[in-house]
Amino acid sequence: MSEFSEWFHKILEEAEIIDTRYPIKGMHVWLPQGFKIRKHTLKILRDILDQDHEEVLFPLLIPEDELQKEAIHVKGFEDEVYWVTHGGLTQLNKKLALRPTSETAMYPMFSLWVRSHSDLPMKFYQIVNTFRYETKHTRPLIRVREITTFEEAHTIHSSEAETEKQVERAIEIYRTFFDSLGIPYVITKRPEWDKFPGAVYTMAFDTLLPDGKTLQIGTVHNLGQNFARTFDITYETPSGEHEYVYQTCYGLSDRVIASVIGVHGDEAGLSLPPQLAPYQVVLVPIIFKKGGEEVIEFCKEIEEKLKTEGNLRIYLDDRDIRAGKKFYEWEMRGVPLRIEIGPRDIRNNEMIIVKRNILQKETLKLNPETLTEDINSILSDITHGMKEKAWAILKENIRPVESIEQAVKEISENNGIISFAWCGQKACGKEIEEKIRVDILGIQENFEGEGRCINCDETAKHLTLLSRTY
Amino acid sequence: MSEFSEWFHKILEEAEIIDTRYPIKGMHVWLPQGFKIRKHTLKILRDILDQDHEEVLFPLLIPEDELQKEAIHVKGFEDEVYWVTHGGLTQLNKKLALRPTSETAMYPMFSLWVRSHSDLPMKFYQIVNTFRYETKHTRPLIRVREITTFEEAHTIHSSEAETEKQVERAIEIYRTFFDSLGIPYVITKRPEWDKFPGAVYTMAFDTLLPDGKTLQIGTVHNLGQNFARTFDITYETPSGEHEYVYQTCYGLSDRVIASVIGVHGDEAGLSLPPQLAPYQVVLVPIIFKKGGEEVIEFCKEIEEKLKTEGNLRIYLDDRDIRAGKKFYEWEMRGVPLRIEIGPRDIRNNEMIIVKRNILQKETLKLNPETLTEDINSILSDITHGMKEKAWAILKENIRPVESIEQAVKEISENNGIISFAWCGQKACGKEIEEKIRVDILGIQENFEGEGRCINCDETAKHLTLLSRTY
Repeated sequence: MSEFSEWFHKILEEAEIIDTRYPIKGMHVWLPQGFKIRKHTLKILRDILDQDHEEVLFPLLIPEDELQKEAIHVKGFEDEVYWVTHGGLTQLNKKLALRPTSETAMYPMFSLWVRSHSDLPMKFYQIVNTFRYETKHTRPLIRVREITTFEEAHTIHSSEAETEKQVERAIEIYRTFFDSLGIPYVITKRPEWDKFPGAVYTMAFDTLLPDGKTLQIGTVHNLGQNFARTFDITYETPSGEHEYVYQTCYGLSDRVIASVIGVHGDEAGLSLPPQLAPYQVVLVPIIFKKGGEEVIEFCKEIEEKLKTEGNLRIYLDDRDIRAGKKFYEWEMRGVPLRIEIGPRDIRNNEMIIVKRNILQKETLKLNPETLTEDINSILSDITHGMKEKAWAILKENIRPVESIEQAVKEISENNGIISFAWCGQKACGKEIEEKIRVDILGIQENFEGEGRCINCDETAKHLTLLSRTY
Repeated sequence: MSEFSEWFHKILEEAEIIDTRYPIKGMHVWLPQGFKIRKHTLKILRDILDQDHEEVLFPLLIPEDELQKEAIHVKGFEDEVYWVTHGGLTQLNKKLALRPTSETAMYPMFSLWVRSHSDLPMKFYQIVNTFRYETKHTRPLIRVREITTFEEAHTIHSSEAETEKQVERAIEIYRTFFDSLGIPYVITKRPEWDKFPGAVYTMAFDTLLPDGKTLQIGTVHNLGQNFARTFDITYETPSGEHEYVYQTCYGLSDRVIASVIGVHGDEAGLSLPPQLAPYQVVLVPIIFKKGGEEVIEFCKEIEEKLKTEGNLRIYLDDRDIRAGKKFYEWEMRGVPLRIEIGPRDIRNNEMIIVKRNILQKETLKLNPETLTEDINSILSDITHGMKEKAWAILKENIRPVESIEQAVKEISENNGIISFAWCGQKACGKEIEEKIRVDILGIQENFEGEGRCINCDETAKHLTLLSRTY
């Protein structure tokens, strides 16, 4: 187990995010603290999606015949699908699959819903649990058998141009979402042999975890008319003809939470962006023998003020234990801002603040008039500071290479992401993967200027990324 | 199919709440309108529960051996459990059940979580989907195979007295919840032979649907130490001994939405309490040939004002169709308040309002200064009006009877709920059920004063309710 992996498991347990002791491999329990982080994360996501999508909820179970209609799609999932075969003591006539994703649950209904060009576009999403019978080593929030938090959007359009635009819009949506969590990412077009089963092409978001491996955190698929043909989803054009619709779908999962934990955390534990934190501020009264009550009273006023005026999630920790123990605990749990107030601070109209992301003490004027505004502005600084730092680390770890040898050396010595020129040929791509023994992540952009493929020396077409992955 | 049943199905379809055409019996799709009603309902429920419960999320699947540990419990569910037997093409070593309810998923973990008396009480809840292989006739939102919205709370205590108090607290919670939806209810203690499998006793909420049958909409169970013994959930007392904990659990489901639809609806369609309505207000500009633009501009200002000042969900319906068609549509969809504004209304500083629950036109002063307040107060009137009417109907339909003959007559002629005196003996209760051919709902309260059992003429112990049920 790598150092990061050990750290990750320890933090999930200590910060009470997930309990991994549930008696089924790869299925875990969200604990109250973890559930709150998940809830605040989903709130951000829903606020973005609700602007132009409708939330719906489809059944978990998919009849065998529907799942198997799309041949390429089912081939991509057949080793991973959990099957319900019995209801009570009765064997079912038709096996039911636990959704691995919901195309085959939704699209038979879409075929009933879409009638005319005037119905389009339609944009739906749902946030549900999905299931994959993973045979690889499972890992909480990263590779699991029950994905408890699967956001999947599905859109329907009347032209290819519109799906292209929707793919861009979806990328914009996920950018906005990841940006608000301070999660940096690379966006690539997955190579042909690694796209979503049934898609025309797949765009993907990957972030970098501290062990130098990338984690896929979101995907956007252009489905073209592939599923429309299979599920007979047609619309009537203005001139009265019946045409197949064009579709996209895009999704993300529990891995978003894993990346928040992995990207922002440090030796002291979790470090949470204020928007996600169960408590955004912890207030610790610094009490000596004398004047303790006065300090606590004062802190209660501050707490009340920040709660009512600022609608902040704040915790006044007046437990009768050493302040150092409190600091340790709240740092480990990732509370973005700690405020310490002692008798002298009250006399001087001051407070000590410690931002979780940098862990340095600062003394600040405590002005009741502007307190809420001041704290909000500090929280906003923390958000920006976390995001900037995370992006700087990602950028440092994308390294251009000019030869296969350099690629091999770079990946084995420094991990991270390498970027190189590629001709775009499948056979050559497969050779690159074999030689470096690491899979291509995807195409970042078309190659500008004169360049040669790192492997075959033909004209380079794409700037391509490669990294070890989760 | 009864008249109500027909109405119910029609309204689910026309108001776009649920699509029942999903290709598995008893499993349905929440459409955007229905999903919004569900979302607002869950918001109310979470706001209440979050006051003193922690939200968690447990896996859907339960290993066979855990499910079967509690003998009485499993007997209650064995005919209804869906079983996963295969992962991909591989047969699983151990069958996995789709949770019918989560006691057997949660309690093995509780046995790890509870250590000391100082950990207690613990109060958790989750809102999840659960599964029952129903062999009876299924009915959307009422008797389904995937319960998409199952709220289940589970609490752990160190004494019997505390569980008694928690049962009362849970009843209070559900009262508050149903009251805010305007759903009237009777609360009874279920007879011994109808309690939750594994419980010491079960308290239940039932409401009355327009066809005179009652619908169980919530239950509260005192589990005593039954599950604690099975799952070995112990705590250390202050004196260092290990004792089994005491538990309660309580839940409700999609049926809450069914009861909102059934109880408040009428011939014109859905009628939604303002807190649940996707749109709380619909604003219809009354446009004649001249001055149309002026009216629409004016309505836009009103819309903007109510949105920003009142945070109201309002829809300005300026579609180019007949006003009558708009009225019909929004009434059918249950929008609580319609405002109509035409050129003359603007000149007179007036507006016409129609409350969905009473469907009568009223002319009201339109004062921009107090508009938001005025509308909020009207919405609040609607909420109260709906609740009062619903309670009046319920109360009218609870009829005391003095003999078995009268009970049979009352139930067959008028349906509804009958109340009578009962000795409390199981054998006699079973006889009553057989003679009336309807099951006892439960005990409402202890019988006050001198009275004789309706069946055996022994001393009456309980005032008991009986009704046809869903």
